[in-house]
Amino acid sequence: MVSSKRLQAHLREFAAIGATREGGITRLAYSDADWQARSLATRLMEQAGLQVRCDAAGNLIGRREGRNPDAPPVMAGSHIDSVPNGGNFDGVIGVLGAIEAVQVLSEAGIRTEHPLEVVVFAAEESSRFGIATVGSKAFAGTLPVAALQLQDKDGITLAEAMASRGLAPALIGEARYASPIKAFLELHIEQGKVLEKAGKAIGIVTGIAAPTRLRAILTGQADHSGATPMNLRQDALAAGAELILLVEQLACAEMAWGTVGTTGIVKAEPGVMNVIPGRVELGIDIRSISQDSKQRVVDKLGREIEKIAARRGVAVELEIVGNDEPVQLPAAMAGRLQGICDKLQVDWMPMPSGAGHDAMHLAKLAPTGMIFIPCRGGISHNPAEWAGIGDITAGTEVLLAAVRQLAEAGSL
Amino acid sequence: MVSSKRLQAHLREFAAIGATREGGITRLAYSDADWQARSLATRLMEQAGLQVRCDAAGNLIGRREGRNPDAPPVMAGSHIDSVPNGGNFDGVIGVLGAIEAVQVLSEAGIRTEHPLEVVVFAAEESSRFGIATVGSKAFAGTLPVAALQLQDKDGITLAEAMASRGLAPALIGEARYASPIKAFLELHIEQGKVLEKAGKAIGIVTGIAAPTRLRAILTGQADHSGATPMNLRQDALAAGAELILLVEQLACAEMAWGTVGTTGIVKAEPGVMNVIPGRVELGIDIRSISQDSKQRVVDKLGREIEKIAARRGVAVELEIVGNDEPVQLPAAMAGRLQGICDKLQVDWMPMPSGAGHDAMHLAKLAPTGMIFIPCRGGISHNPAEWAGIGDITAGTEVLLAAVRQLAEAGSL
Repeated sequence: MVSSKRLQAHLREFAAIGATREGGITRLAYSDADWQARSLATRLMEQAGLQVRCDAAGNLIGRREGRNPDAPPVMAGSHIDSVPNGGNFDGVIGVLGAIEAVQVLSEAGIRTEHPLEVVVFAAEESSRFGIATVGSKAFAGTLPVAALQLQDKDGITLAEAMASRGLAPALIGEARYASPIKAFLELHIEQGKVLEKAGKAIGIVTGIAAPTRLRAILTGQADHSGATPMNLRQDALAAGAELILLVEQLACAEMAWGTVGTTGIVKAEPGVMNVIPGRVELGIDIRSISQDSKQRVVDKLGREIEKIAARRGVAVELEIVGNDEPVQLPAAMAGRLQGICDKLQVDWMPMPSGAGHDAMHLAKLAPTGMIFIPCRGGISHNPAEWAGIGDITAGTEVLLAAVRQLAEAGSL
Repeated sequence: MVSSKRLQAHLREFAAIGATREGGITRLAYSDADWQARSLATRLMEQAGLQVRCDAAGNLIGRREGRNPDAPPVMAGSHIDSVPNGGNFDGVIGVLGAIEAVQVLSEAGIRTEHPLEVVVFAAEESSRFGIATVGSKAFAGTLPVAALQLQDKDGITLAEAMASRGLAPALIGEARYASPIKAFLELHIEQGKVLEKAGKAIGIVTGIAAPTRLRAILTGQADHSGATPMNLRQDALAAGAELILLVEQLACAEMAWGTVGTTGIVKAEPGVMNVIPGRVELGIDIRSISQDSKQRVVDKLGREIEKIAARRGVAVELEIVGNDEPVQLPAAMAGRLQGICDKLQVDWMPMPSGAGHDAMHLAKLAPTGMIFIPCRGGISHNPAEWAGIGDITAGTEVLLAAVRQLAEAGSL
């Protein structure tokens, strides 16, 4: 059985590494604090009976052999690096939950048919080099070589940071996990407030949303606010306001697909009281687990903004600055997790993941499942990030049961 | 008859003082360039037969006696200071037009019943000290004493700037024009594009709008843009977008009163792609020549924004940061100017002034009229500011005729 007490003690040990005054942590990828946390993870994995190695990207892989050494492993994991002044739960509970699951099996003397692997993925957060999930991308063989030349704010490249930790960036291609994987599981805090609002203990992730990002530039006429009658205006901000509401409205119409649309950036020029804004820039983020749904929003946005622009005499440029493919997680895996929750009498709900995770890339290699637990107020990437030990324990119980089922022959 | 050629030559002389590389001028109040331009104005006034003095605020007053030395003067004028890199017509044509009118009368040997005065008002632009129409406020006795301590960007106070020009700030109260004035007239570029769009040569100003300025602060919840479904959002920017459109819609409904409403400032925090804006600040400018109309807009805005805020779960603060009274110009004066335009066969239209002018303060002292001429594209406070010499000449003809009529006994 999962030990709440042990999980709690391990959480405290992690929270001390890179601790900030505000009660959060700063463990940027490949930093001293990150490496210190990896030492702790290595020690805990070894205690759980895992044999630990480090791959060419810096991913830590702990393995416990199964009864059949040739069978593909069942894998679970997450990350322990953080954003600056981030929270104590993002990533960490996925690593601790996976270690705890193996520890429980080891203590009970249960040897599964398939080997078990716990992975601590390197550089999941984009904070240091502007690229997320470096380790799991390398694992999946999809990390672009150019990423090695990305720099942090001090001008240190990813390649240099890796080399400083004794890794050989030139060999990063070897991090690709070429042999078969039976299944991958990731336990994670939701980083939203859906579970909290719904009063559910577990979210079973149906897919991982990916953003399409747009930049809209509206160009009107910067005229005197007093001397220009309402009917002679080409107000770029009024046009922008229509666009902001349109993004919201089109995303709401696609709510069945978990689609969301956000205008997070607005800049109006010249930005003074007595001049009608002549130029407005908007940054728009549309996310969904359905690429079709995202595309419908983008298409309608393009059509409607042309009408707004024509009606207002404002010029509009709508540029797609990013368009990532969402990942659907297999229904069979979600069904298995649901069955486990029901058996454990844990209240669950299906849900999309709005944020990206290492599991996105593992889904290319193996049948993948994600287990979400609530976090208070949906707050994440912040010292105020908080998950209750009861929820962490429940999530770990589900993870343990799933690992055990999957690691027996014939399943899936 | 008004001489286009002379006006053109004088305009060129002014354009050379404080000329910028972009073809505009920088003549900040009480600067060397401003004082150089005043020397030129003084010379031109003297050539026109005016006797020039400088009052305690630095207003230049040129006077030509009438047949009756005890009669109140007919006054005309404007300003010659500018914003940084401003245009060559704002203010200047009102001064040159007034001088030209007196010059024409002097050359024709016409001595009017009433004395004539041409005034170059000091520090009309707010660019240097953050306060507009210093000279005409002092003239009307409404300049707050505290204004003397306002500082420019180099920390020089208005009092120090005045003293550097040989003026005695302590005596600024003496600038108040205590004796009666028969009438005041100001010729000015429109600084909007109403006349240009309407194809009219002259705008006869019915009133001078004054702004009511509001700051709206909307506080929602800064959640993750991917992990927060549309129905769990408190998006401060979406609420702000509704407010921006509401300002526009309420102003449009008051168009009959020449009312305009502009949201010129928008700031969204944190202002990044992947976070729903949690805090938005808007700067709103509402102008009208009718205080009642402005008040209706402000009242409705207050009521409607509460509804938007309640519906969206967003908190709203709506603060009035300025509320100036508009000035109605006397209908009798407008009627006189209209009659003159008709007689001169110049196409005119009545219109409000959206921008503020020295005439606002003179309206407290005397029956006041303003004559607008078109400026290209409505552009002002910019090197691209442009008024055609034909329009300047036509405006000056109207001014001359009005000055002449008003300066005869019995009229008005």
